[in-house]
Amino acid sequence: MNAVTTATELEHPATEDLELSAVLHALSDPVRLKMVRYLAEAPEERSCRSFDVPVTKSTCTHHFKVLREAGIIRQRQEGTSRLNTLREDELEARFPGLLRTILASA
Amino acid sequence: MNAVTTATELEHPATEDLELSAVLHALSDPVRLKMVRYLAEAPEERSCRSFDVPVTKSTCTHHFKVLREAGIIRQRQEGTSRLNTLREDELEARFPGLLRTILASA
Repeated sequence: MNAVTTATELEHPATEDLELSAVLHALSDPVRLKMVRYLAEAPEERSCRSFDVPVTKSTCTHHFKVLREAGIIRQRQEGTSRLNTLREDELEARFPGLLRTILASA
Repeated sequence: MNAVTTATELEHPATEDLELSAVLHALSDPVRLKMVRYLAEAPEERSCRSFDVPVTKSTCTHHFKVLREAGIIRQRQEGTSRLNTLREDELEARFPGLLRTILASA
């Protein structure tokens, strides 16, 4: 997927800049880990509201921001929605086995 | 190692009660992760002051408390020192491969 360059483009860290501490912190929240699990199981783009998690929309938005800033997901704006995908291959390249092991532990 | 039962006995979660979110949170701090790496590399009991980390003694004490409460280390009081060991086998039993994968990622 190519990055979409628009006025509302969202910042994503480059693969080589991903930091383990940020990734572990992002995944240390049970709701965020659940969201990541959903994305791992269904690799299509998904919006906040498509997730079955017991949080408000603004909390959901916050959680996705933490995941994006840690480099775990990619987000793109489409109209009023942000569509989310997992950066699975990039995470695997940077931290081999990490995401799989964490998801297997949950 | 047997638990030492004294008036100052420190609480440790049982292996089956270890929570992934607490473990990931504890390891998401770079200083704590460094301490865990030292303990993994040298399995003898070590006190706070034996660690080469750029923090004050009280911060060190705090970090070890977080690690103990997450179930990552075992602490026992000996005189005025707290001696720390990694709960490597128990972590491996509860979350197979997790600690090894995280240490390999750092």
